[in-house]
Amino acid sequence: MKLATIRADNAQLYGAILEDGFVNLTPDFPQWPTLYDAISAGGFDQLLSMAEGRTATHTDFTYEMVLPNAPRILCVGVNFPDRNAEYKDGSAQPKYMSLFPRFASGFTGHGQNLVRPPENHTLDYEGEVAIVIGKSGRRIAAENAYDHIAALTLCNEGTIRDWVRHAKFNVTQGKNWDRSGAIGPWLVPFTDPSQLDDARIITRVNGEVRQDDVLSRMMFPIREEIAYISTFMTLQPGDIIVTGTPTGAGARFDPPRYLKPGDVVEIEVNGIGTLTNGVEDEA
Amino acid sequence: MKLATIRADNAQLYGAILEDGFVNLTPDFPQWPTLYDAISAGGFDQLLSMAEGRTATHTDFTYEMVLPNAPRILCVGVNFPDRNAEYKDGSAQPKYMSLFPRFASGFTGHGQNLVRPPENHTLDYEGEVAIVIGKSGRRIAAENAYDHIAALTLCNEGTIRDWVRHAKFNVTQGKNWDRSGAIGPWLVPFTDPSQLDDARIITRVNGEVRQDDVLSRMMFPIREEIAYISTFMTLQPGDIIVTGTPTGAGARFDPPRYLKPGDVVEIEVNGIGTLTNGVEDEA
Repeated sequence: MKLATIRADNAQLYGAILEDGFVNLTPDFPQWPTLYDAISAGGFDQLLSMAEGRTATHTDFTYEMVLPNAPRILCVGVNFPDRNAEYKDGSAQPKYMSLFPRFASGFTGHGQNLVRPPENHTLDYEGEVAIVIGKSGRRIAAENAYDHIAALTLCNEGTIRDWVRHAKFNVTQGKNWDRSGAIGPWLVPFTDPSQLDDARIITRVNGEVRQDDVLSRMMFPIREEIAYISTFMTLQPGDIIVTGTPTGAGARFDPPRYLKPGDVVEIEVNGIGTLTNGVEDEA
Repeated sequence: MKLATIRADNAQLYGAILEDGFVNLTPDFPQWPTLYDAISAGGFDQLLSMAEGRTATHTDFTYEMVLPNAPRILCVGVNFPDRNAEYKDGSAQPKYMSLFPRFASGFTGHGQNLVRPPENHTLDYEGEVAIVIGKSGRRIAAENAYDHIAALTLCNEGTIRDWVRHAKFNVTQGKNWDRSGAIGPWLVPFTDPSQLDDARIITRVNGEVRQDDVLSRMMFPIREEIAYISTFMTLQPGDIIVTGTPTGAGARFDPPRYLKPGDVVEIEVNGIGTLTNGVEDEA
């Protein structure tokens, strides 16, 4: 059972993805206009129950960013050993993780094109696993951290690489171009630690493997991400944490291999699915 | 006429602040549960009109963060010449502004205490003017930027200073502690360029002036902030831009003068008002 936000009938709807299509749950929960509203109100399990035994209402639809109105998306940077080495600044493993927020407007959905803006053509991919919080908490102990995860999804944490270093202390403007990344296709309920502990990220561009690594090699494992972040802010249902990308982004090649219109990026993680996006120049 | 979010009758309400108190507009707009919802739907002027000629409904209330569910708050860092010099890294004026998002959960309202956490006591103040976008736009020209501002407010961009440098590239974790800052007391409609061009920020701690500067000395004026930010993301009604703090934060003293329980911080800007907050240790 997977939950998703989609577009059909000229409306944004949410519901479950079944073998034979999409079952619209939006009319069943008038109190929750969006999937984010449902999850932030603690309704994740109710949605899953409501979808049991239903049949598809739509077979013709497009995916949207999985939680298009999520107000809090926090990304973990430089979280694989080779990624840290890629910066060639001689630094040992950092003591603390690097974190940056992204606005939801920076992401599109599965099957949609990432947008390359006219100002700069260094659009780059980063394949990542994203978690969605299901239970609030502050100062969550690492050993209890998985209890706070409702679901998993995938992120192409697309970046305008040149703009990441515009500013002195922050990557903000390279990470928040409208529709420069994607989150989806869907939410997979998190029910077993092995879904994360045994996960492997493979990113392909036009079929060629560019990133291939396992989450177990993260410098800051997901349990520690939740523990650290919840030290300073109360995590709430519906919060998204984008957990970090392996080595192999386009910027790391010499010369760099940035995305161009017509390219297709696939991010595949066992047990979660494949997030596929084309690339287009901004209209 | 000023608009505000307040707490009274065990509820969060929004409305206008009049000479004799607060007039509750929440029941007049059932389609907009919050002040942010009203502004993001383009309803700012409707609220002002509705408040005309009304009398106060509440005299006993407390202020909340002015837009408690605003999903996009973007702060400009290091935006006064002396602030750049404070970093003592020999850098000339940077070519681009530094930007970082903050979540709404990091802010409380006027009259509430900022919270000093047990993990670290380097809680610091930063007095700033914040603007609220009223009209959407992408790639807004600097000369038209003021047309996109609906209102002005004040921000104490409170920071846990030690945590700002935890991470390699970002200030995120020093800038997002729950209730470490404040935004308010209210929104003042922006009707004339002089409201920004002639504004002067004065920050006092326990009555002692710590910051005193004029917005006209900004390295990146507010018009340029709007132009630059809207290059990469479409600005939307309800977006908040926190425009930058002058020199004189507690961290810049030797030894540093951080905030402690019982301190009172006042941020005063001519024509907008005074944002006052105490300080307490986290319960």
